[in-house]
Amino acid sequence: MRTNELKQILTEMTLSEKVGQLVQLTPDFFLAGGEITGPMQEWQMSKEQLFQIGSVLGTHTSEQVMQIQETYLEKSRLKIPLVFMADVIHGYESIYPIPLALASTFSPEIVEEVAQLSAKEATQAGVHVTFSPMGDHVMDARWGRVLESNGEDPTLSAALTRGYVRGYQGGNLSTEKNRLAACVKHFVGYGAAQGGRDYNTVDLSHVNLYQNYLPAFQAAIEEGVELVMTSFNTMDGIPVTGNKEMVQKILRGDLNFEGVVISDWAAVVELIAHRIAKDKKEAASLAFSAGIDMDMMSDSYQTHLAEIVLDTNQQVALDNAVFRILTLKNKLGLFEDPYRGLRELDDNQLAATKKQLAESILTISEKTPVLLKNDNQILPLKVGQKVALIGPKASSQDILGAWSWIGESEKAISLASGLQEKSLELSVLPMEDGQVITDEAINQALILAKENEVVILAIGETSEESGEAASLAQISLSRNQDKLVQAVAQVNPNVAVVLFNGRPLDLSNIVEEVPTILEVWFPGSQGGRSIANLLMGEVNPEGKLPMSFPRSVGQLPLSYLSLSTGRPMHEGNKDQKYISRYMDEGNDALFPFGHGLSYSQFECVDQGISHQAFREDETIEIRLAVKNNSQIAGGTTVQLYIEDLVTKVARPVKELKQWQKVYLEAFEEKEICFTISAEDLFYVHHDLSRSVETGEFNLYIGLSSQDESIKHQVAYTM
Amino acid sequence: MRTNELKQILTEMTLSEKVGQLVQLTPDFFLAGGEITGPMQEWQMSKEQLFQIGSVLGTHTSEQVMQIQETYLEKSRLKIPLVFMADVIHGYESIYPIPLALASTFSPEIVEEVAQLSAKEATQAGVHVTFSPMGDHVMDARWGRVLESNGEDPTLSAALTRGYVRGYQGGNLSTEKNRLAACVKHFVGYGAAQGGRDYNTVDLSHVNLYQNYLPAFQAAIEEGVELVMTSFNTMDGIPVTGNKEMVQKILRGDLNFEGVVISDWAAVVELIAHRIAKDKKEAASLAFSAGIDMDMMSDSYQTHLAEIVLDTNQQVALDNAVFRILTLKNKLGLFEDPYRGLRELDDNQLAATKKQLAESILTISEKTPVLLKNDNQILPLKVGQKVALIGPKASSQDILGAWSWIGESEKAISLASGLQEKSLELSVLPMEDGQVITDEAINQALILAKENEVVILAIGETSEESGEAASLAQISLSRNQDKLVQAVAQVNPNVAVVLFNGRPLDLSNIVEEVPTILEVWFPGSQGGRSIANLLMGEVNPEGKLPMSFPRSVGQLPLSYLSLSTGRPMHEGNKDQKYISRYMDEGNDALFPFGHGLSYSQFECVDQGISHQAFREDETIEIRLAVKNNSQIAGGTTVQLYIEDLVTKVARPVKELKQWQKVYLEAFEEKEICFTISAEDLFYVHHDLSRSVETGEFNLYIGLSSQDESIKHQVAYTM
Repeated sequence: MRTNELKQILTEMTLSEKVGQLVQLTPDFFLAGGEITGPMQEWQMSKEQLFQIGSVLGTHTSEQVMQIQETYLEKSRLKIPLVFMADVIHGYESIYPIPLALASTFSPEIVEEVAQLSAKEATQAGVHVTFSPMGDHVMDARWGRVLESNGEDPTLSAALTRGYVRGYQGGNLSTEKNRLAACVKHFVGYGAAQGGRDYNTVDLSHVNLYQNYLPAFQAAIEEGVELVMTSFNTMDGIPVTGNKEMVQKILRGDLNFEGVVISDWAAVVELIAHRIAKDKKEAASLAFSAGIDMDMMSDSYQTHLAEIVLDTNQQVALDNAVFRILTLKNKLGLFEDPYRGLRELDDNQLAATKKQLAESILTISEKTPVLLKNDNQILPLKVGQKVALIGPKASSQDILGAWSWIGESEKAISLASGLQEKSLELSVLPMEDGQVITDEAINQALILAKENEVVILAIGETSEESGEAASLAQISLSRNQDKLVQAVAQVNPNVAVVLFNGRPLDLSNIVEEVPTILEVWFPGSQGGRSIANLLMGEVNPEGKLPMSFPRSVGQLPLSYLSLSTGRPMHEGNKDQKYISRYMDEGNDALFPFGHGLSYSQFECVDQGISHQAFREDETIEIRLAVKNNSQIAGGTTVQLYIEDLVTKVARPVKELKQWQKVYLEAFEEKEICFTISAEDLFYVHHDLSRSVETGEFNLYIGLSSQDESIKHQVAYTM
Repeated sequence: MRTNELKQILTEMTLSEKVGQLVQLTPDFFLAGGEITGPMQEWQMSKEQLFQIGSVLGTHTSEQVMQIQETYLEKSRLKIPLVFMADVIHGYESIYPIPLALASTFSPEIVEEVAQLSAKEATQAGVHVTFSPMGDHVMDARWGRVLESNGEDPTLSAALTRGYVRGYQGGNLSTEKNRLAACVKHFVGYGAAQGGRDYNTVDLSHVNLYQNYLPAFQAAIEEGVELVMTSFNTMDGIPVTGNKEMVQKILRGDLNFEGVVISDWAAVVELIAHRIAKDKKEAASLAFSAGIDMDMMSDSYQTHLAEIVLDTNQQVALDNAVFRILTLKNKLGLFEDPYRGLRELDDNQLAATKKQLAESILTISEKTPVLLKNDNQILPLKVGQKVALIGPKASSQDILGAWSWIGESEKAISLASGLQEKSLELSVLPMEDGQVITDEAINQALILAKENEVVILAIGETSEESGEAASLAQISLSRNQDKLVQAVAQVNPNVAVVLFNGRPLDLSNIVEEVPTILEVWFPGSQGGRSIANLLMGEVNPEGKLPMSFPRSVGQLPLSYLSLSTGRPMHEGNKDQKYISRYMDEGNDALFPFGHGLSYSQFECVDQGISHQAFREDETIEIRLAVKNNSQIAGGTTVQLYIEDLVTKVARPVKELKQWQKVYLEAFEEKEICFTISAEDLFYVHHDLSRSVETGEFNLYIGLSSQDESIKHQVAYTM
């Protein structure tokens, strides 16, 4: 449909029909077949109003979508198709590893594949828009939603956010019917919830906002993301969903976003709970003035927006909001095909898609685990080895993680299933996932541990324990799982812990007890198979931590992107008093950002730098050899960090700027090259602009944020 | 001296002499009698430069001051007297309870007395300026310097800060020779150090800054404070000591401060460690441009400022800075009497002062302890009772707390000493303070516990464990002190824990084990005596917590001043998922702000409100009866909180606005009245102005921030 035709539709709409386009409801409003019951009654909504609404979120099946769209088009006056949205976060029915796990790949290409294949499956079920990616900057493992994040580095997060948007949206939404429109969330600051408590107050400076919180959104917008979701939290004391400066000035103005802005679930009406609106009408007024186009699951717009628009002469603003929504529907080709995606594939093609997804999930879930520790080469296991698999995650299928609501955990492959396919002398002692481990169970574990060469302890979190509304004040291993580890390690030194979880945990009370820890996050549908392949060495771990593991909850919030402070701690002064440190804890992470081992032995060897100095329009190349000093093929991520030695606004000691994935055969060596330009040095200044001054910079290249194998100092001149 | 004469001095000064006035050094620069050794040599400082400097910090004795001033005046060309500054924080030689304890009195009059008498003692030793009060807003118990703060409430902190300034400075510094000029610190944001780690990065919004961090400074400035010290931390990414917006725009501009701005210790040179200055010259330049008048203990100004001033034509700014310092010296009457205070009192008068101080300290340290819990009326002890006093703090004299550097802990009265004066059948089992409690020691404790009616367990922190550079990642009871409590409570239920510490601790693993906990903070020189009086019931506890005690370190930062959020937790929804809460911990404090019990039983009974509505120029009176329903006389603090039901910028659920101390005889009843005016309702808006809108407000009156004994809803109209 052409713009003119869209505009024509707008002229034909009544005020009530315009407001309807801004309202988003769940399918249950339609379930009684148009009868006024349940939620409709609660909201005092008429049938006429129902058939004026603009969108639906959270359908479960293609039949549901088909039925709702059919009924709607039949009963609605203007027959503007509904747009269907859903939380396709790390897959739709076929579940990939959680986003934090995907971030462990450091690979925009991999998340692009995830997004593309997830879209292929979700579009078949009639979904048009996904509430993904999440670009929230995070540094507090207490917050359960770190699971959905790309971790603590804004540059990495921006790159991955781009990958998601590309993968979901493809090149042309109207012709590529197996693509989804993406909605980047949560704009903005949500990850800084005070005390890591979900939905809690956020307070941060604008310099910090522009430096660390906006880049992922900027990236998504540059990539053409169609929607932005506002966050629940306050910024400058005002909830973002009612915050004109954040939405109008920053998102629309500074970031040039022209698509649809949608609230989070019930966030408009929650302005009342925030106590910045006295009632639903004021909530609707604040949200609309702030620039929220769509009211997700509250009746504030539905009930009050028409009156507000008339009273305050905001007809133009309303038309603009409606036009953005019509434009989205048009981009999705819904006017031509309201059943977009639903009839695209026949049964054979659907089966092929499922197969493609299973293969992709298996391959990718082999790349997401992070080998935190492997001291005595307990891993990989050897063929024929006598192995005990013990713990609440041993046979658990609760390995999909939060936000896998259409995913079927009963089809997920448990670690026990995965390992049973291998040539091992395997004994399994499963424990009830999510239950406290009893002394009796520990005694059984000890008996088994003594009888076997190697013990795999599969422990961690249930999917309820991380994700949204799953904040923790304690992030240690719970339910006696630490006791299990300690006890088993006493009777058999050959212990490999396999950790299933959605957040960095405090591992301080097991880390010294065991030689090996493999972090597998929530690995998705194929988890048991991919982990078994990793444990056997059929594939080699290559994940890198996208988020630091703290030494204790008392260090939080924590990030490798910390500033020097005026009294920095270093090796030479760490026992002195008047420096920035805890008396009872280190400043650094237990496992830092970027860390991740391999069965291979990698080494970075400097091959020289092209210049020691460069100007604005020049670049510097740093060449290095990456060597595999082992007989095991494998992959790793080589990371380049900069340190700006003197700045106008204090900058972190190190910042990730570039990275490259390198795969090497046994004893292979490859030369790679990083090219640095002025853009890599830019940072946010006091006036919120991005630039850099003439000065000296340290460049660090290595295999983690703490690895300084290669170091160069360079000078930059404007 | 008249202003004209001061200006005349300025005209006679060389550039080098002007810069000298801005430099502050420790006494050791003078100790070699003017020889160029030690620190002078390190700083490449000439004798001529030494005798041009403006001030000295940290002298220990009157003799030292006398000698340095004499030498200086003899050798300096212009003979502008040195001004001597020191950290008189909670007393000079005679040590009061720590500031956080003093804040437990909620009494500006008490801190005024503390400040006045501390000044009286310190001026005798030749001190002219104290680096006190500390007005930092705090909400993280990990930060050791909460010890020096007035707690988590900005209104309480502002009132107490005023009390300190009044007490130190009196009405006229030049005629009242036993008064000190006060220096309020640390401007600004220092208390928000990330993760509670001292000197760490601070990041907060300007709305938060103006609402919570500036009020104490504003109060001090309104009270005429002579100096302001800048803080170590960043604000908006720029260390405050080099932050023009914070010092020039906010401190000088918005807060109208006209006195001397001094850096914290070495903070100017630490701009290099912050990496916003490449060298000392740039550090000096940034700090001077920002508006730092005095460079405390760095050689940046000394070495580079003259050149900077010439190169950048900042002669006027330099003259202004020098003139502010000369004005301070003149206000102190130093031109007339460079030995101010030193010859004021004869030996008898000095002895009388010491006696007066001892009495004041005793009385005040009886008012600072907070009775957190007293379930079975274990306290007060009964005359003749068989009592065991056990624990590392039983006989410890380490009860003065941090920043009592001239105080002599060997003269401090231990709890054992205090209790031995009482009519008790007392057995004391002391333990080495600061050492891990062994199993053997616990066994000894158990034997004694079984033999006695009541056990007093004296435990807590050493003075090294809180204060500056004493941050903790864990705030539980350390060194097996929790084990001691748990074990003793098993064999004798009549346990009273007496807690000596400088910060809120996590008491969750002892709070259910014992019926009684008395928080005595670091009680000062007379601690053992005052606590003994309290334990015996000769005086009645009346302290109220100025800072919440968290349930665990995982809740931090924590304050009762939390916002509702969009998904607030309350009794009715606390088990639901999608609300703002931890899955494993409550949101509320273990002991909330304002909490504090008494041996008396107090009750607040509503006597009515004058109006339900008021306008800008009107007030509302709320009358209530405070009753003592017991036969024990005592005192308490009645607290009035407001809740603004709807605001433009989200406001806390409750905010302390007023409070009154009430003392009642047995079964006495007093009527008191609170008068509310528009000013009580003002809050900081998005444009950083303070105002309030027409609306509804809840007023709560009770004996803690959680006590809602009296509640009124009122309407305010502009």
